[in-house]
Amino acid sequence: MAVVEYDGTYYKGFQTQPGEVRTVQGELIKVLSAVLKKFEDFSYSGRTDTGVHALNQVINFKTDKDLDLYKFKWQLNCLLPDDIGIREINLVEESFDSRRSAKLREYSYFIVNNNSCSVFLKKYSILITRRLNLELMKKAAKMFIGTKDFKSFCRKGANSQNTISTVREVYSFTINKNKQDLIVFKIAANSFLYNMARIIVGTVLEVGSNQRKLESIKEVILKKDRRLSGEIVPARGLFLTKVEY
Amino acid sequence: MAVVEYDGTYYKGFQTQPGEVRTVQGELIKVLSAVLKKFEDFSYSGRTDTGVHALNQVINFKTDKDLDLYKFKWQLNCLLPDDIGIREINLVEESFDSRRSAKLREYSYFIVNNNSCSVFLKKYSILITRRLNLELMKKAAKMFIGTKDFKSFCRKGANSQNTISTVREVYSFTINKNKQDLIVFKIAANSFLYNMARIIVGTVLEVGSNQRKLESIKEVILKKDRRLSGEIVPARGLFLTKVEY
Repeated sequence: MAVVEYDGTYYKGFQTQPGEVRTVQGELIKVLSAVLKKFEDFSYSGRTDTGVHALNQVINFKTDKDLDLYKFKWQLNCLLPDDIGIREINLVEESFDSRRSAKLREYSYFIVNNNSCSVFLKKYSILITRRLNLELMKKAAKMFIGTKDFKSFCRKGANSQNTISTVREVYSFTINKNKQDLIVFKIAANSFLYNMARIIVGTVLEVGSNQRKLESIKEVILKKDRRLSGEIVPARGLFLTKVEY
Repeated sequence: MAVVEYDGTYYKGFQTQPGEVRTVQGELIKVLSAVLKKFEDFSYSGRTDTGVHALNQVINFKTDKDLDLYKFKWQLNCLLPDDIGIREINLVEESFDSRRSAKLREYSYFIVNNNSCSVFLKKYSILITRRLNLELMKKAAKMFIGTKDFKSFCRKGANSQNTISTVREVYSFTINKNKQDLIVFKIAANSFLYNMARIIVGTVLEVGSNQRKLESIKEVILKKDRRLSGEIVPARGLFLTKVEY
């Protein structure tokens, strides 16, 4: 099992895609192949979209090799591009699967709510100059907590056959502002639908900027209609920040 | 007066240079000329070397224009490259000079002391895998505080004629480590000699890794000889973090 960190700016998301597309998984597979020659059952805790970052993407795979884990981590970090890093490597039981065994995933979204954005945050946040109502957004966030059908917050067409459940359990959703006017949204759930974190943040932002009534959130959830929820926020502000097992 | 922030990675330092060299000052002058047409007496708190970053470079200039400062800041930030930003703009008295009026400058240096460096810190820190002795380094730091001749910590040849004084007053020098194994060096002085902050950090690091005796520092200062001090550390870990007036 390895904990992987990446700056997603220059990747077409995590998951390998057909053709000459640069993905985080593609780079990992390339480097693992070079070091291990052979490995099996590569798995990961969750896809991240194009441009989304991660501090804690968890991956796992099987290998017969007897590895010095310290040296192995060092080798991988030397071969990986500068914007992908291995933070941790541990041996786990054969039954461990970073996707199926995951009990909680946490995404964080960063918003600079000021009249300009630090040059060091531009790639990792969005700038909103209109003053956001933090208290209203905190109230909105609470309405997402619990086991609900989040179909309204899933990219349309992602589940067109209606065969897969869109019910998810949101464990927590906090919004905090620090002294530098950086607002951090943190949403933890058992798992996330396609674009769910970014559509939820976009909807809450509409409440915070008085473009949407707080009370409307309940109805949007009940109606299970993507057209009723808010605009999706840009990928660059989103980080996969935690996965728990 | 404006407070400027920049990621120095892709610049040949702050100061304008002859020829087609990309500098932070060059970019600022270009944008100020576009917006103001005419301005005079451009000044700045201090040069930073190639690759050094700043959170608080202070600049000033004179203009006859009657400016809406909010709008002016917005215009500058729209025209500047993504890695240079104006954090603040204020009117000041005509006598203000960001270089001459400065009473204190603070530089910070970032070191990741672990077996790997976060991908988000690679451009802004150096990685040292050997465990550094923090207590020894703190003792070394104290020996730099006060009014001293720092000629041993100035790039050789920078003051070849010996006409300019190499005496400076170091007000404070702290070294702290956070939970993520990030060590932060902060040095404040009335002003800094060429490469002074980076040579001092390099010398203290040699103490922290047992390559140099703590007691040697005093002698190195007294001897005023660059050959006795430590190796200069890379520019990418250095930030100009404060200027006080």
